[in-house]
Amino acid sequence: MSDRTLEATLDAVWTQIARGVTDRTAPARQLVLATVGERGAEARMVVLRGADRAARTLEIHTDAASAKVAELKANPKATLLIWDQLTDLQIRIRVNVTVKIGEPYSWARVPTAARDVYGGAPTPGQPIDDPTDFSPSPDVTRFAVLTCQIREIETLELASPHRRARFRDATQGWIAP
Amino acid sequence: MSDRTLEATLDAVWTQIARGVTDRTAPARQLVLATVGERGAEARMVVLRGADRAARTLEIHTDAASAKVAELKANPKATLLIWDQLTDLQIRIRVNVTVKIGEPYSWARVPTAARDVYGGAPTPGQPIDDPTDFSPSPDVTRFAVLTCQIREIETLELASPHRRARFRDATQGWIAP
Repeated sequence: MSDRTLEATLDAVWTQIARGVTDRTAPARQLVLATVGERGAEARMVVLRGADRAARTLEIHTDAASAKVAELKANPKATLLIWDQLTDLQIRIRVNVTVKIGEPYSWARVPTAARDVYGGAPTPGQPIDDPTDFSPSPDVTRFAVLTCQIREIETLELASPHRRARFRDATQGWIAP
Repeated sequence: MSDRTLEATLDAVWTQIARGVTDRTAPARQLVLATVGERGAEARMVVLRGADRAARTLEIHTDAASAKVAELKANPKATLLIWDQLTDLQIRIRVNVTVKIGEPYSWARVPTAARDVYGGAPTPGQPIDDPTDFSPSPDVTRFAVLTCQIREIETLELASPHRRARFRDATQGWIAP
């Protein structure tokens, strides 16, 4: 994508995102969520569950008892990172995250077999003697929907020369790599 | 790796790290560096350049003028994230990062063709009219070595059931997923 215009670059980002929502094998399906924690920066993989280009939002689901929910409540300014190794394209998405817990409409769309990750005892991160000392127990009150409102998208293409662009509200432009 | 002991899990982590240093195709070769920025959490891909299990350090190289260097000087508590899609293993490494700029011994080991990413004008993130409006100029005073001192390693295996472990100094144990 070495000769892409800015507009085509942004379109490529949203194509990647759209594929991530529907295609389990797409690079954007599993993406990084970085947050500010009590002990510095935190990062983990999450699954992309929804996207809305017009509203500029992305949707992630998680256990309400996980550390990331507490971190996002304390500081909603997070980054989502998509890395497409095949095309050497990095997409950084700076977001403000809103947490909504126990939302019945979204819960109804979660397949029964997939509900185990929302709930259970003990809560995430608690010490256990054996990895099997955990009882899953699907619980809508532990189901958290993270709505990620996009503040800024930054792309880096590792083609030669490197091409880096920034998209923020109405302004967009190339920046030095 | 569903029946691994804690010791074997930690060994698997260091095997991944060692492969990342020497094998350009290994999952740990390109890993995520998450930092605390002025506008919230930041994340980008970096390349693993070195590792020392005895010293519990990992080494990354970057342009001293990049935002991540300023972020790490303000808050050295970062996370490195390795994601092995093939084995569904996530490795989170919480680190304290020390920045050393212009270190001649490390610079001498950087291949000439790879030096272009350290230096050049304008500096990273500055607006430019066209992606080609950037002049690379290898510069040892722009060469930053990030030494990442490990505080904690956390693994998550997405086998069924999920298995999560934490390794910190002398203490290690399973934790709820």
